[in-house]
Amino acid sequence: MAEKLSTSPYKGSRDFYPEEMALRKWMFSKVRGVLESFAFQEYDGPLLEPFELYAAKTGDEIVNQQLYSFTDRGDRKMAIRPEMTPTLARMVAAKVQELPKPIRWYSIPNLWRYERPQRGRLREHWQINVDLLGGNVEQSNAEVLAIAGAIFKSFGGEQFVEIRFNNRRLMDAFFAHLELGAEGSYALGKLIDAKAKMNPEAFAVELQKILEANSKQASDVPAKTLIFQSFLASDLAGLSKIAGLKDSAEFIKATQELLDFEKQLSNRKLPVKTKFDPSIMRGLDYYTGIVFEAYDLSPENNRALFGGGRYDNLIGLFSKSELSGIGFGLGDVTLMHFLETHKLLPVNQDSQLIYIGCADEALIPHSFDLESQLRGQQRAVVSGQGFDSLKSHLKAASRVQARYFIGLLGDEWARGKVILKDLKTGQQSELSVKDELAKFLAAT
Amino acid sequence: MAEKLSTSPYKGSRDFYPEEMALRKWMFSKVRGVLESFAFQEYDGPLLEPFELYAAKTGDEIVNQQLYSFTDRGDRKMAIRPEMTPTLARMVAAKVQELPKPIRWYSIPNLWRYERPQRGRLREHWQINVDLLGGNVEQSNAEVLAIAGAIFKSFGGEQFVEIRFNNRRLMDAFFAHLELGAEGSYALGKLIDAKAKMNPEAFAVELQKILEANSKQASDVPAKTLIFQSFLASDLAGLSKIAGLKDSAEFIKATQELLDFEKQLSNRKLPVKTKFDPSIMRGLDYYTGIVFEAYDLSPENNRALFGGGRYDNLIGLFSKSELSGIGFGLGDVTLMHFLETHKLLPVNQDSQLIYIGCADEALIPHSFDLESQLRGQQRAVVSGQGFDSLKSHLKAASRVQARYFIGLLGDEWARGKVILKDLKTGQQSELSVKDELAKFLAAT
Repeated sequence: MAEKLSTSPYKGSRDFYPEEMALRKWMFSKVRGVLESFAFQEYDGPLLEPFELYAAKTGDEIVNQQLYSFTDRGDRKMAIRPEMTPTLARMVAAKVQELPKPIRWYSIPNLWRYERPQRGRLREHWQINVDLLGGNVEQSNAEVLAIAGAIFKSFGGEQFVEIRFNNRRLMDAFFAHLELGAEGSYALGKLIDAKAKMNPEAFAVELQKILEANSKQASDVPAKTLIFQSFLASDLAGLSKIAGLKDSAEFIKATQELLDFEKQLSNRKLPVKTKFDPSIMRGLDYYTGIVFEAYDLSPENNRALFGGGRYDNLIGLFSKSELSGIGFGLGDVTLMHFLETHKLLPVNQDSQLIYIGCADEALIPHSFDLESQLRGQQRAVVSGQGFDSLKSHLKAASRVQARYFIGLLGDEWARGKVILKDLKTGQQSELSVKDELAKFLAAT
Repeated sequence: MAEKLSTSPYKGSRDFYPEEMALRKWMFSKVRGVLESFAFQEYDGPLLEPFELYAAKTGDEIVNQQLYSFTDRGDRKMAIRPEMTPTLARMVAAKVQELPKPIRWYSIPNLWRYERPQRGRLREHWQINVDLLGGNVEQSNAEVLAIAGAIFKSFGGEQFVEIRFNNRRLMDAFFAHLELGAEGSYALGKLIDAKAKMNPEAFAVELQKILEANSKQASDVPAKTLIFQSFLASDLAGLSKIAGLKDSAEFIKATQELLDFEKQLSNRKLPVKTKFDPSIMRGLDYYTGIVFEAYDLSPENNRALFGGGRYDNLIGLFSKSELSGIGFGLGDVTLMHFLETHKLLPVNQDSQLIYIGCADEALIPHSFDLESQLRGQQRAVVSGQGFDSLKSHLKAASRVQARYFIGLLGDEWARGKVILKDLKTGQQSELSVKDELAKFLAAT
């Protein structure tokens, strides 16, 4: 006898049985509601894209270690999308002249990365992608954060969320001021990005190493260390007072951008907390302006929820036109964990399903008529399959978790009546098909 | 300068810009509504499945010529799903004991096949999969056809659809009676399947060839030809009178199954036409009972719309348990063509979008308050990005196809008023923010 195949889904992927599927649909439907109230429009693209789309723009780690790529039967190198931005860029580039600006688009694609599965990281996940392209920079930046806040508010979880933001231009000016060269700046950026995961001593040791290795004169290192510490400890108001940095015109300009951004946020009264955080780095190569990352503030789920930022020249791979935008991506696994942690999932709704059980063969056509009629009134209805005793039908009705049971019996039907039982309360009555049944159901 | 990449989607796949996406969402939302009114529950599975799932059950043509398969970074042979049934089987097999029967499930996955793209055949398409498992055979068969009919009715296209059905057991008995051996029966089945696409002379020639090559005595061929012709020309009532065949107990039993099935269909008063058709073969190896195929009767779109049938032992690859079911698959491209042909697509709905334009910087925070308030009333709202003249705002509002324009100006605001313009009718008025605006919008 042949060996049986495993019933498990592929490692890092999930089966959505009706119960899980209902949760996923509920979650995405809330998100869609918020996005559409902000006049964002949904788009979608193919699951497969030419490999070159990712080779050119996506980070090295993804392309070399995580991308699902293969050669198709026509010898074309293809990839399963690991992120949505290259598809967005391709689609926008194709119609960049005719699309009215600003472009407000969202998508909820499934994405694939070859990851070692762990909490919050799967090989297949869905990602809510929100992008606002070609609009006023300051307004768009704030609008996108307002949307992120509104999404969490729609689930009742806004009080747990803090969005921390920074400005890539500020970091560029800061790195330029430290005069560490390209390599030293890159290393320092990576170090800042890793700060939250390091202990302070190890962090200090690494910092010294980078400063020493990339400074022309060893005597500069103590002063640079001081500037670095003041910078990382500074709040937004303090930035313009940091000794040394306040003389950099670029740094002051980037500080002003952050202050303007904060003003826009305050105009919009976001439902979530927001805070300047100079340690937010995000995608060193990709972003060009405001960047942000949202955190769950609760100790049980203390982790990044989503991130995003402003990018220039989104469509450069495809077109000579330029288009800048701001966007973020929020994964379904992360959002679901957040909702679970804070007990924000919907309580099981009472079923409203109607089960029709027929105890008499001659009544079967009538039971189907009744079924169609109830469906016409937007009710979900299921019929017992064939005629059977009321007892058997009642068992079957509770198996499918029906709420209401309608029984058709010969004598009662001849008098124009059916049995109606509320399977939750146990109440049972005889109702006339013509008036009382419709009245009863209209009231439920 | 580097060469620019193409903005076209991969051959045989589609980009869904917001307009096309809105149509796709509309179409699937109607289908979901019908399926849920029949108490069918949605499920989903991973896009990738182990290659063996398809190698074992799916047809040779798909596996050898059309499957997208590759080896993952862990050396596991994987495939992008070309159909949903193997995933359904795997998921059901994993929980076959605990799932209450009958199982009423549906799914709308995207599927991939390496096809030469042509009208109605793409490499990526979405397929509505409806399956009823483990129920009473006759009732389930009819229920699934009733659902297919209800889907077409929900779009207002039921009058164009005819579902033609047959019984695989009838064909088996018929082939057995002709005594053509396994090879001859298989060839004859393929010929019948191709009948609609052949001219009658070529069909007759092929028929003779098959009968001659597979009959022990040449003298049997004329009688077999007659039986064949009578069979293919017969309606359901005539089956039991065909000379020769009426003595086959198996044939008569299968005829009775068809009569019972027709009775069930008539009990349910399907909104679409149904008809027995002995030339419906469908998936020679896969189905085991009732099979069916739906056709568009209109001359402009005279083609198969969808098909399905009853299968036994769905989960045999995974489990020793047995489970039979009936199901069908309906593709999004086919359904969209059907709706286009019969002009059943929704007429462009009037936009209800509200645009808020602010002509005074000091009012910007108030405009955001108003925005939030309107969103709280389930309205889609977009703001002009920053303060600007009313004229510029009005241009921007029409670019995003807003229906209503609300303008905030310093003097009017000081008197508690806003400008409201209906961009469709051109009517403009001054309304009080407190009462009149809410009243106006509640009435739209």
